[in-house]
Amino acid sequence: MYQKILNEIFNEVNRLNLQGKQADYIPELAKISPDKFAINLTELSGKNYGIGDINDKFSLQSIAKVFAFTLAYKLKGNEVFRHVGIEPSGDPFNSLIQLEQEEGMPRNPLINAGALAICDVLIDELPNPEQDLFDFIKKIAQNNTISYNPKVYQSEKKTSYRNRALINLMKSFGRIHNDTEAVLDLYFKLCSVEMTAPELSRTFLLYANHGKLPGTQEQILTSSQSKRLNAIMQTCGFYDEAGEFTFRVGLPGKSGVGGGIAAIHPGKYAVAVWSPLLNPKGNSVKGMKALELLTTKLGWSIF
Amino acid sequence: MYQKILNEIFNEVNRLNLQGKQADYIPELAKISPDKFAINLTELSGKNYGIGDINDKFSLQSIAKVFAFTLAYKLKGNEVFRHVGIEPSGDPFNSLIQLEQEEGMPRNPLINAGALAICDVLIDELPNPEQDLFDFIKKIAQNNTISYNPKVYQSEKKTSYRNRALINLMKSFGRIHNDTEAVLDLYFKLCSVEMTAPELSRTFLLYANHGKLPGTQEQILTSSQSKRLNAIMQTCGFYDEAGEFTFRVGLPGKSGVGGGIAAIHPGKYAVAVWSPLLNPKGNSVKGMKALELLTTKLGWSIF
Amino acid sequence: MYQKILNEIFNEVNRLNLQGKQADYIPELAKISPDKFAINLTELSGKNYGIGDINDKFSLQSIAKVFAFTLAYKLKGNEVFRHVGIEPSGDPFNSLIQLEQEEGMPRNPLINAGALAICDVLIDELPNPEQDLFDFIKKIAQNNTISYNPKVYQSEKKTSYRNRALINLMKSFGRIHNDTEAVLDLYFKLCSVEMTAPELSRTFLLYANHGKLPGTQEQILTSSQSKRLNAIMQTCGFYDEAGEFTFRVGLPGKSGVGGGIAAIHPGKYAVAVWSPLLNPKGNSVKGMKALELLTTKLGWSIF
Amino acid sequence: MYQKILNEIFNEVNRLNLQGKQADYIPELAKISPDKFAINLTELSGKNYGIGDINDKFSLQSIAKVFAFTLAYKLKGNEVFRHVGIEPSGDPFNSLIQLEQEEGMPRNPLINAGALAICDVLIDELPNPEQDLFDFIKKIAQNNTISYNPKVYQSEKKTSYRNRALINLMKSFGRIHNDTEAVLDLYFKLCSVEMTAPELSRTFLLYANHGKLPGTQEQILTSSQSKRLNAIMQTCGFYDEAGEFTFRVGLPGKSGVGGGIAAIHPGKYAVAVWSPLLNPKGNSVKGMKALELLTTKLGWSIF
Repeated sequence: MYQKILNEIFNEVNRLNLQGKQADYIPELAKISPDKFAINLTELSGKNYGIGDINDKFSLQSIAKVFAFTLAYKLKGNEVFRHVGIEPSGDPFNSLIQLEQEEGMPRNPLINAGALAICDVLIDELPNPEQDLFDFIKKIAQNNTISYNPKVYQSEKKTSYRNRALINLMKSFGRIHNDTEAVLDLYFKLCSVEMTAPELSRTFLLYANHGKLPGTQEQILTSSQSKRLNAIMQTCGFYDEAGEFTFRVGLPGKSGVGGGIAAIHPGKYAVAVWSPLLNPKGNSVKGMKALELLTTKLGWSIF
Repeated sequence: MYQKILNEIFNEVNRLNLQGKQADYIPELAKISPDKFAINLTELSGKNYGIGDINDKFSLQSIAKVFAFTLAYKLKGNEVFRHVGIEPSGDPFNSLIQLEQEEGMPRNPLINAGALAICDVLIDELPNPEQDLFDFIKKIAQNNTISYNPKVYQSEKKTSYRNRALINLMKSFGRIHNDTEAVLDLYFKLCSVEMTAPELSRTFLLYANHGKLPGTQEQILTSSQSKRLNAIMQTCGFYDEAGEFTFRVGLPGKSGVGGGIAAIHPGKYAVAVWSPLLNPKGNSVKGMKALELLTTKLGWSIF
Repeated sequence: MYQKILNEIFNEVNRLNLQGKQADYIPELAKISPDKFAINLTELSGKNYGIGDINDKFSLQSIAKVFAFTLAYKLKGNEVFRHVGIEPSGDPFNSLIQLEQEEGMPRNPLINAGALAICDVLIDELPNPEQDLFDFIKKIAQNNTISYNPKVYQSEKKTSYRNRALINLMKSFGRIHNDTEAVLDLYFKLCSVEMTAPELSRTFLLYANHGKLPGTQEQILTSSQSKRLNAIMQTCGFYDEAGEFTFRVGLPGKSGVGGGIAAIHPGKYAVAVWSPLLNPKGNSVKGMKALELLTTKLGWSIF
Repeated sequence: MYQKILNEIFNEVNRLNLQGKQADYIPELAKISPDKFAINLTELSGKNYGIGDINDKFSLQSIAKVFAFTLAYKLKGNEVFRHVGIEPSGDPFNSLIQLEQEEGMPRNPLINAGALAICDVLIDELPNPEQDLFDFIKKIAQNNTISYNPKVYQSEKKTSYRNRALINLMKSFGRIHNDTEAVLDLYFKLCSVEMTAPELSRTFLLYANHGKLPGTQEQILTSSQSKRLNAIMQTCGFYDEAGEFTFRVGLPGKSGVGGGIAAIHPGKYAVAVWSPLLNPKGNSVKGMKALELLTTKLGWSIF
C-alpha cells in the first residue's frame, strides 16, 4: 500500500510545478540540481518504500540538530533544559532579538542558538566531542558510513557570520562555556552530515519507536524522553512555520535548508523527503506538499 | 479503569500542595474559592468519569474562543485564515508588539487579538450574532442551558483596557469591520460562558470525534477541519506555554484564566480539569499537573 | 536683513520642486491645497517678517502638544516627569511597542502617548480643563481669537483608532486616571488648534525668551524650565527624525502633520514655516528645507 | 571666574556623596580608585582651568569614538552617512535588536555598532589604519604622547563578546568589508586611548572652535561639519540618556564608561570631567552633576 501511495504522491507533486528557491548562502548547496526529489518511508518493522532520487546523499543541515539534542538529552536528562527551552520561537527570522530579550537563553534546541548551546553541552560532556558525536550518529543510523561533507563544512565555516553573532551574544550572557570557535566547528560539522532519504527515514525510526533502536530494540531515549522530543519537534521543528506544518501535515518532524524533511508517526513509521527548492521560510516546498498528501491519503495524522 | 485513574490523580495532585494565584483582574473571578478542583473525562461513547467539584460551573474564558473559531471556520472555510494566522505567538505577554509588527494580523485565533478578529467575522456573517453564536454553543454542547455569567461579563466590560488597545490597533490597520464596542461586547459575552467540567469535556468530544457531534454524529466540521483545529490547539492553545504543555501532556487543548483546561485524545476521549490557581503564564497549576499524570498513567499521548 | 533672507529662501525652496504627500488620514487635512507655503520669523523685540500664505490658518496638530506640556510643567513643576520621560523615542512608527515594553510610561511629552498622558494630568489639575487650557493658549499666544477647528476635531475623533489603542494600553498599566474618552476629547481639541504662521511664531517667542511672554515679560515658565523644554524639543520634537533635524537645522523645534514647524533660536527669534507636503516621517518637506537654509544663510545654529 | 566656579562645583559635588558603580567588565578599569575626580575647562583662547586629579590619565572608551568619526567624516564627507545614521538609538541596552531590525545599519556613529562601522571605513580608507588613526588623534590633541593603554586593550580584546556579536551581525548583512578581527582590533585600540582631563578638554576645543585646531586655526572639519558633529553629540552622545543630559546640561558632549565626559559650548569653551563611578546607564555620576552645575552657575546652556 505504502509504495503505491508514495508513487501517487511523487507524481502528483511533480505535476504541481511548485516553485521555490535553493539555499544560496552556502555555495555547495546552491550547486545541487533543483530537480532532485525523493520520498522514502520506513515502517517500524524495517520495511522500506522509496521513490525518486533515493540514492543521493543530501546535506541534513538543521535536521541533524535532532541527533545532537538526542545525545545531550540522553547524557544529561532534564538537566539539559537548563541550557535550552522548549517553546516555539515565534519570531520569524529575528532570532537575535528574542535571544537578547531572553538574556541568551535559546527558546528551544532546534533553532540555531539552541543547537549551538547543545554543542557547547556536548563539548562539556564528551571526552572526544567530535568523534563521540559522530559515533553516536552512526549508531542511531545503524550505519557506519555516515559522515559529513567537508566542502559544505568549510563553506559554512567561512561564511556563517550570523551564527557567530548568536554564539558571541550567548557568550556575553555567560551561557557558552567553551571557546566559541570550537563550538562553531562542531556545529558546522553536525550541520554538514549527509544521508540519503532511506538512511534518514531509517534513523528517524528511533523517534517513532519510543526511543528504541528499531532492530536491536536498544533503548536510546526513555519512552518519556522520546515522547517529549517528538513534542518539541511538533512545536519547534519548522522555524516559524511550525504551526503551518502541524496544521497541514500533523506529524512531528524536522526540516533543513538542504531541502530535507524527516517526520514520524509514533508507533507506525518514519518518512524522509528531499527536494532542494525552499519556500521563503526555508522549508522544502515539495517536501511539505508530499507530507501533506501522505497524511491526507493515509487518513492518519496524530490529530 | 478511567474512574480509578482519575481518583488517583485527584489525590496525588492534592497531596502536592501546588501553589498558584487566582486571576485578580476580574473581581468576579477573584471571589471563587481557591480550593475548587474538578477532573472529568468523557469517552467517545459518551461514558463519563468525574471527581471533585464537578457540579460547579466555572468561567470558560479563553477556552470559549475555540467555539467561536469553530463556528467561523464552519461558516467561512479556509477563508477564515485571511483574518487570523495559525502560528504560535512566541512572545510572552507582549501581544501588542507582535500585532503591531505584523500590521494588525493576529498570529492565531486563540490569542485575544485573534478571538476579537473572529468575533468581528461572526458579526459580519451572522444575522443575529449574539443569539446565533450562543445557539451554536448550545448545539455543540448538546445542552440548552449553557449561558454566560452576566456579572463576569459586566466586570470584563468595565476593565478590559488591554483588549480595547488590541482592537483599536487592529482597527487602525483596517482589520476590524464593525464597531469596536460591538465586537468587544460579543467577545466579553463569549469569554463569560460558564460550564461544569462534565459539560466542558462533553462539548470537546466534538474535537476528539473528527468534527462530529458525539450523539447524532452530525458533522459540524469536516474531518480535515477538525484535524486542523486540533493542530492549532496543540501549537497555540496555552499562550506562550504551548511548548511546555505539549512537552508534558502531549494532547491538543485549550486553557482559560478561569482555571479550566480542556484537552482531547483524538479518537479516544475529551477531558476537562478545573482549579482556579494559575501559574505566572495564566494556566491552571493543578490542571496542568493532572493532565500530565493522566497521559503518563494511561501511557498515551499523541506522540 | 531677515526679510531679504526669507524671500530668498522662499524662492529657493519653491524652485527645488520638492515632493511630498499630504496627511490623508484626516479628511479635513487632505483638502488643503498642496501649494500652500508660508515662512514667518519674529524677533524677540516683536519685529515680524513673513512671506507666502501668512494669512492662512493651518492645523497645528502635534505642535500644540508643546502648549499643553508648557501648562502642565507650569502647574506641576518636575512632578510632571512622573507622567512622561524626556528621552527620544528612537522607534520609528512603533510607539506601541516601546510603550508596552516600558509599561505604559511614554518616552517624552511630544509623542502621542506622552501628550495623552499630559492631557490626563491637565484634567486632574484644572477645574475646567478645556476652557482653562484654551485660555492658557490664548494667553501665551497673546491673542484671544485662537481656537480649534471643529471639523478637524470631529474628523480626528471619528478615526483615531491608534490613539485609542495607545490610551487604552496606558490605562491597562494604570497610567491614566480619567475616562479615556474624556482625555481623548481634550487631546483632539488640542491637536485641532489653528494658527497662521505669524501667530505661531509669535507664540513660540515665549521659548526663545527664556519663558517670559515677549510683551509683558510675564514669567510663564522659569528660565530653567524654558531651557529644559527647549532641550526636549531638540531631542524629541521631530518624531524619529529628531537627529536629522538637529543635524540639518540645529535649532529646537516641533513639527506637526498639518505641515507646520515652529523653531526657536534662544535669545534671538522664533520662526514658523508651513507647507502641507510631508516626508515619509510626517515632517513638512519644504519646512525642513526652509529652516535648513535659514540657519545656513544666517550662519547661526545653536551648535 | 572659571577657576572659582570649578572649585565650587568640585566641592559641592564631593559633598553630595553621590553613589555609583565602576565598570567591572574590564578588569583594568575596575582597579581605578573610585575617589578619582577631575574637572577641567579650556577656553577657546587656550586658557586652562582645572581642579582635582587632573594629572591622571584615564581610559577614554566611547569618547574616543568621536575622534574616529571626525577622521572618517573628514575623509569621506557626507558619504560617511552611507555607513551610519544620525538618529538617537532610543533602545536602552538592546542595540542588537535595533541593529537586526534595521538590517545592520547602525543608528549613529557614537554607539558601539556605529563606531565599529566607522573603524571598518577607516581600514578601507587609510594606508596604515592604526598608525594613521593615532597620528590623527595626536594631531587634534596637539600632543605627540597620546597613546592607548595596552592592558586595557588586551583586556577588551579578550572579553568583548557583545562587540563580536555586533560586528558579526553587521557582517551577515554585508555591512563590514574587512576581516572582523581586524576591525575589532582597531576599535579596541581606539577605546583604550588615555588622556588626562586637560588633554581631553583641549582636544575637544576643536568642536567648540567650528572645526579648527585652536592654536594653528587649521581647518580639520568644515564649519558645517563641525556644527553637524555637535548636533550628533547632542542627540546621541549619552547612550539612552541623551535626553537626560540635554535636559540637565544643555551642551553637546560624549561620555565613556571609563568615567569621563567631554562637552563643549560652541564658541566658548570645552570641558572634561572624570570620575569612575557610573550610573546604571553607564554615565559618570559626578561628571553629569558637575556639568549640570556648570551650566547652571554660568547661566549658559545652548538652549
